Amino acid sequence: MTPAAPPSDYRFLADTLDVADAAAFVHVGDGNDADLRYLSHLSPSTHDYGFVYANKEATLCVPSDVDDAVLNGFAGRVSRESLDAPVGRRVVDVLDTLDVPDTNGVDGGPTVLVPQHLPHDTAVYLESAGYDLASTPAVGDARAVKSSRELDALRAVQRATVRGMSRARTILSESVARDGGLSWQGAPLSTERLRRQVNATLVAEGVVDVSTTRIQVGAATGTESGDDPTELRGGVPLVVSLAPRGPRGYYGTLRRTFVVDSDGGWERRAHVGIESARRVALGELEPGASLRWVHSEAVAEASSFGLTGPDSDRVSGIGLSRREAPSLADDAIVGHVVTVEARAVDDTHGTIVLADVAVVTEDGCELLAESPTKLVP
Amino acid sequence: MTPAAPPSDYRFLADTLDVADAAAFVHVGDGNDADLRYLSHLSPSTHDYGFVYANKEATLCVPSDVDDAVLNGFAGRVSRESLDAPVGRRVVDVLDTLDVPDTNGVDGGPTVLVPQHLPHDTAVYLESAGYDLASTPAVGDARAVKSSRELDALRAVQRATVRGMSRARTILSESVARDGGLSWQGAPLSTERLRRQVNATLVAEGVVDVSTTRIQVGAATGTESGDDPTELRGGVPLVVSLAPRGPRGYYGTLRRTFVVDSDGGWERRAHVGIESARRVALGELEPGASLRWVHSEAVAEASSFGLTGPDSDRVSGIGLSRREAPSLADDAIVGHVVTVEARAVDDTHGTIVLADVAVVTEDGCELLAESPTKLVP
Repeated sequence: MTPAAPPSDYRFLADTLDVADAAAFVHVGDGNDADLRYLSHLSPSTHDYGFVYANKEATLCVPSDVDDAVLNGFAGRVSRESLDAPVGRRVVDVLDTLDVPDTNGVDGGPTVLVPQHLPHDTAVYLESAGYDLASTPAVGDARAVKSSRELDALRAVQRATVRGMSRARTILSESVARDGGLSWQGAPLSTERLRRQVNATLVAEGVVDVSTTRIQVGAATGTESGDDPTELRGGVPLVVSLAPRGPRGYYGTLRRTFVVDSDGGWERRAHVGIESARRVALGELEPGASLRWVHSEAVAEASSFGLTGPDSDRVSGIGLSRREAPSLADDAIVGHVVTVEARAVDDTHGTIVLADVAVVTEDGCELLAESPTKLVP
Repeated sequence: MTPAAPPSDYRFLADTLDVADAAAFVHVGDGNDADLRYLSHLSPSTHDYGFVYANKEATLCVPSDVDDAVLNGFAGRVSRESLDAPVGRRVVDVLDTLDVPDTNGVDGGPTVLVPQHLPHDTAVYLESAGYDLASTPAVGDARAVKSSRELDALRAVQRATVRGMSRARTILSESVARDGGLSWQGAPLSTERLRRQVNATLVAEGVVDVSTTRIQVGAATGTESGDDPTELRGGVPLVVSLAPRGPRGYYGTLRRTFVVDSDGGWERRAHVGIESARRVALGELEPGASLRWVHSEAVAEASSFGLTGPDSDRVSGIGLSRREAPSLADDAIVGHVVTVEARAVDDTHGTIVLADVAVVTEDGCELLAESPTKLVP
């Protein structure tokens, strides 16, 4: 697997240590921890890993039995050790060996920067060994701006996501409303049946995690899964929400709303309003724009059509996590990749939602992949 | 979705607090954190959650915009709050409201039990608010013994895993060796092509995360993914390793080795030895057996065939994580669910591996689902 590496790897950590006058950066996590994956370029695995950056060198503490293939993407030093020692203690050993400078003067040990979600036991090991801890948002900040290799990975998974949505659209266009339910290829179409069909397409496109695929019917909180499938019906909005993870660990996101056999009522008018809110948001997204402004302009546009939605963020970063920096508190800069969502919820009629992923460019923004927005499949 | 709830939910926490003379249990994590999912029965989502257990009541701190459907499985009190406050501070607010007893006497605040991997910032918020922290392994311990509902979820995902393996076996049995590579349905068969076919079957069976599917060729560290597919060949062992996650969050595991067009050399003899090692391990697994003993008996049996493998654990727990308690340090008890693996690696000839999932029963153990072990597909 070609890792989607950040451009200059650990220069941002060197800069962060310089500015903070700190000796080292430490993190501990497993294959599910996006910061750890960003730092190590590891493929997912079941173990805990320790990451240490000091003296301009990165060290990864891995268990002795970890497969070499998992480590392919990591460029620094690898410290293999027995499974018996907790990884939090092993990073202390690595730090001790590195003999980092005591930047903190007389009243404490060397300062070590850590992410806020560093495991508590690792913090205790470090403090017991005489290191002073300070939190840093450096990794999350670095992750917010995507390298060209990361953009390639994000575009690839978003293209696969678009194909999954096309599959949903095709199935719904082939479905007929009868006896109060939808029928496809001679059998009733349930949320679960549609979900499995869409997931099969996503996986055939190379996506590896489809646990977030949702088919929702009605207002905000539709039925969502396996054990309790709901029969789909004509005349009501069906929200298809896809957020799969691709083989390099990056997420896509795409949400579309369809009505089979629409009688042209509320959902048509609401859909026009939400398409307009989506256009407004994408039009406002450019370098320097506050994401809160982009969000509120989309909400205002929807309101002008009489539409309201839940109090959720319509614009947020996406990458190795489904939701990461930038947040509404940030201004857009070139290389930010964000989910842009427009949503209306009506207790009687249901939900209309459109969501896409866009990258901020010098001229404004650009969708990572295009998918039609129309309501009738 | 019907959550796979532990039988008596939070009684183990009440007991743990009693024994430790502690006032509360706190954890913070997101939808990827298995402990948090075990405690909350949440569907995966992108937010951080806080869990507080005190005064015999469970409280879940969730963001204001979380979908009700995500919370379906949670039985306690839900505290919805704005996204702006860090969740670590919100659990302190909940604790303060609950007015927990100061179990710690005069020299400190109330004792709060936390998992070792509690995020560091949450620990700092709690300590700053006057609470004394102590680590507890209670949640991991509780997770080791599965309830009947958890077993149902594990059996369901393991049955789907067996069907994915059948798909691999069928494709390999239909493949022919020619021009140094394998051909299936008139086109070359690569690791990537086989992987996508198997994944499509897994997803059609309802599985939601197939990111761990590996097709490995040769010795321990085969090529594993997407961007760099390897053509499959006849006459060499191909390891198909499946560890998908089902819709209720539980993992399956199944590993089989196949040789297309075997000339009956090393791989046949090694496969006989590994089948024997697998039988020995499954024969030794029963209540009271040390898992280290089960592991070492399998290794010894393989050695008697002249086979060696990497220094990895052959027996370990599986559930909401691919690897969890029990570990080799534990003795088997009824309700433990473990992966049992037998593996031989030869630098020249490659890897032979068989892995299954078994539940410890009163009489010994029982595979969660059966899959043939034969080498020739």
